Amino acid sequence: MDNCVFCRIISGDIPSLRVYEDEECIAALDINPASPGHALIIPKVHKKDLTELDVPEIAHYFAAARLIGERQMEKLGADGFNVVQNNGPAAGQTVLHFHIHVIPRYAGGPQIAAWKQTEPDPGFLREIAERLTSEA
Amino acid sequence: MDNCVFCRIISGDIPSLRVYEDEECIAALDINPASPGHALIIPKVHKKDLTELDVPEIAHYFAAARLIGERQMEKLGADGFNVVQNNGPAAGQTVLHFHIHVIPRYAGGPQIAAWKQTEPDPGFLREIAERLTSEA
Repeated sequence: MDNCVFCRIISGDIPSLRVYEDEECIAALDINPASPGHALIIPKVHKKDLTELDVPEIAHYFAAARLIGERQMEKLGADGFNVVQNNGPAAGQTVLHFHIHVIPRYAGGPQIAAWKQTEPDPGFLREIAERLTSEA
Repeated sequence: MDNCVFCRIISGDIPSLRVYEDEECIAALDINPASPGHALIIPKVHKKDLTELDVPEIAHYFAAARLIGERQMEKLGADGFNVVQNNGPAAGQTVLHFHIHVIPRYAGGPQIAAWKQTEPDPGFLREIAERLTSEA
């Protein structure tokens, strides 16, 4: 995909700071990191998002995310890490080539602030549960 | 684990709105959702976080997240979804029993705002890459 930024990073056409590579994916530093060490797991194959992956691909890429998170703690002194994977422009996915953000977090530093919690009434929650589990 | 909220949800000791269940995990609605349909994938076994999972567990739980995301789009009309998995209190993990947030997103509604982007200089990024890939 000539017009895909991540395909061009995989091909080497666009430079990146790779911190991991195997047969199926790379990890590269995000150039606009949320925190020092913020990395992206990027598959070598072009798939749009999580809905296009099979189970072995899911296993491989999220296991790579675990490995990078562990290295962020071991080698950068992170105290934890967020795994964030966005699907679709409505969900904030800006590059439509599946990728996983692995964001190291440091005690006392900024935390993830991914959402504003709401307090819907129980009836509304039950209705949502019914719709989600409906056969129709 | 008697004092673990998610173990008590799994056992049924604490009620929840389950929207999926199989041998290894459940999905239940978050009672403080970021958006209508926000669900949690919760393993039946107590593992602290991603670093404690083996590859088959990773595959199973993130494949369940994919399934729930697909249902959020199909049955609730979501236009996309975020997969968010926090590791450690420094990363905002409040229940220390591995779980995955699956957050549906609707066009025109609030998006994920997980982080503030930074613009570190290339030298700093190279130094981080070197530390992450060091053998020491």
